[in-house]
Amino acid sequence: MEQKNTLKNAPKDILIITTGGTIEKTYDEFDGSLENRGTSIKNRILSKLRLPYTNIIVHPVLSKDSLYMDDADRKLIAETIAADLELNAPIVILHGTDTMALTANYCFEHIQNITVPVVFTGAMVPMGFDDTDATQNVTEALLSAKLLPPGIYISFHNQIFKVPHVQKNKEKRTFEEI
Amino acid sequence: MEQKNTLKNAPKDILIITTGGTIEKTYDEFDGSLENRGTSIKNRILSKLRLPYTNIIVHPVLSKDSLYMDDADRKLIAETIAADLELNAPIVILHGTDTMALTANYCFEHIQNITVPVVFTGAMVPMGFDDTDATQNVTEALLSAKLLPPGIYISFHNQIFKVPHVQKNKEKRTFEEI
Amino acid sequence: MEQKNTLKNAPKDILIITTGGTIEKTYDEFDGSLENRGTSIKNRILSKLRLPYTNIIVHPVLSKDSLYMDDADRKLIAETIAADLELNAPIVILHGTDTMALTANYCFEHIQNITVPVVFTGAMVPMGFDDTDATQNVTEALLSAKLLPPGIYISFHNQIFKVPHVQKNKEKRTFEEI
Amino acid sequence: MEQKNTLKNAPKDILIITTGGTIEKTYDEFDGSLENRGTSIKNRILSKLRLPYTNIIVHPVLSKDSLYMDDADRKLIAETIAADLELNAPIVILHGTDTMALTANYCFEHIQNITVPVVFTGAMVPMGFDDTDATQNVTEALLSAKLLPPGIYISFHNQIFKVPHVQKNKEKRTFEEI
Repeated sequence: MEQKNTLKNAPKDILIITTGGTIEKTYDEFDGSLENRGTSIKNRILSKLRLPYTNIIVHPVLSKDSLYMDDADRKLIAETIAADLELNAPIVILHGTDTMALTANYCFEHIQNITVPVVFTGAMVPMGFDDTDATQNVTEALLSAKLLPPGIYISFHNQIFKVPHVQKNKEKRTFEEI
Repeated sequence: MEQKNTLKNAPKDILIITTGGTIEKTYDEFDGSLENRGTSIKNRILSKLRLPYTNIIVHPVLSKDSLYMDDADRKLIAETIAADLELNAPIVILHGTDTMALTANYCFEHIQNITVPVVFTGAMVPMGFDDTDATQNVTEALLSAKLLPPGIYISFHNQIFKVPHVQKNKEKRTFEEI
Repeated sequence: MEQKNTLKNAPKDILIITTGGTIEKTYDEFDGSLENRGTSIKNRILSKLRLPYTNIIVHPVLSKDSLYMDDADRKLIAETIAADLELNAPIVILHGTDTMALTANYCFEHIQNITVPVVFTGAMVPMGFDDTDATQNVTEALLSAKLLPPGIYISFHNQIFKVPHVQKNKEKRTFEEI
Repeated sequence: MEQKNTLKNAPKDILIITTGGTIEKTYDEFDGSLENRGTSIKNRILSKLRLPYTNIIVHPVLSKDSLYMDDADRKLIAETIAADLELNAPIVILHGTDTMALTANYCFEHIQNITVPVVFTGAMVPMGFDDTDATQNVTEALLSAKLLPPGIYISFHNQIFKVPHVQKNKEKRTFEEI
């Protein structure tokens, strides 16, 4: 009985693959630059969320503005996801918004047999700003990764988009279904 | 084509029924009290989220610490939910944590034919505190209300619990499956 | 030359005596109470300020809502200040607003030979709330403690009041000169 | 009697001259740039402070990274200050840190007969970031402008520096006495 309860409420793994993007840009006081410099999602977002039933594994792969990603980067991301499928845990991917749909489409076309939910997200404003949407988007992506069936998605601004039917709407500063 | 896109990306309604609870307690500078005094979810949480595809309707019903709710309050909440089912929109209910499971069970037993997702949530720390879990819980409840099938749930700390298989764990300051 | 620069820019001590009050009330998730439970000024305020030239010494004396302070408490506070004068460092005192003027007057009447600035402050809203005035008031008190001549003051809402010519204005939620 | 109290507690003017600098850089979601684009001190800082006895007048003059300021800019700033002296109100100047000491020295040398406190401040991290020092520095500058005798100062990180005996210490991310 006790054991059964323990199993029922045991934390489940979620893998977060970080690739950079606006969401992870940080400010350098010394030179005044706002750039990608590795991941700080643990300190800036995860430490402020309450996740008693979730065991987060952070897997940093790239730290790039997505405008500067090329096909080699996309291949690396897709291969990382494909390799991580064997963990049998939902996957959240932090990615710049400018080419997020492009990378998600690349993964959709190149990864065989998606066996877990793979949820891309990012932000219009870097984490660490008062009015960032990073915390909202990560919170939503982590929950959607638990609730969605296997497949590739973009989660953004309280909306789930099924890849490849999604694009960024730069004027509206969000994503939209196509 | 343009019209089709508009329909695809049209905002969808979510109804938020507020009943009080820790999540909605506010501080009064004049007398130093921390109490339920109507709803402030619009100013304190919704205004800080980006919800381009979500049209929130706030329906205040009660403003009570859930320790002081009785069966008449639960009857009122259940009847409100039952009446609001005709809107055919997902429903989120803000409620104190101490008797949230009791009220959710009451609704599970008394509402016939639940045709939308009905998601209870609340918080351990009132909105407006630095370390509140209110924003996280509301963000998650709004998304789960879009993704879950019809039924009654408690959404809390990145976990979805199916009513009636859920209770508060006071020592762990969260909910758990039973 | 190097040594001279070091001396010029050496950190100077400021003593913070804590007595409780709204400014230091904290929320207990377990029972929902908002009460004085020791000092948390280091974690909640000082850790967020940049004080390269200031060495803060925190001296907790009481942890009480000032409505419940009596003359024995005021005697203790005055004796603590009198004893701490020998450190020859400016003194900031965190205190509830309801009887802050009373305690400050008591100190004004009972402490002989005030040789440093003694600055009382507090807050209308506890530290840890989004809209607290605690950070502003502590920031101002720390600076005024460096700039004012020896004497007893209340520093509140960007205004310095000379004791005993000051009282709380409960309706305006601030202090005023009398 | 009533009139006397009103006069005692009447708000006093402080003039804030804005020139740009890191403190006022804002993030543009559309192109991802962090730049000076006019002043936002009212919304981002002043609206969050409690200033019942202070009447702030914001006077925008420039909106430049101080690395790009030249002598024409410094002449404009000094002439603005000189002209504003007739208001007989303390003056706070928001300025980039990289050449703040240079501009302050320029004013020290070119403005005759400084009849009010003139306090320069800025920030290492723009307002709007979680860990900005802008709110602290503005809070301190506003108070020091009330307490200091006429003269030119830099107020930064809870320390007051008398111009021209001050310089930026880039490695320590603050100012220091020279």
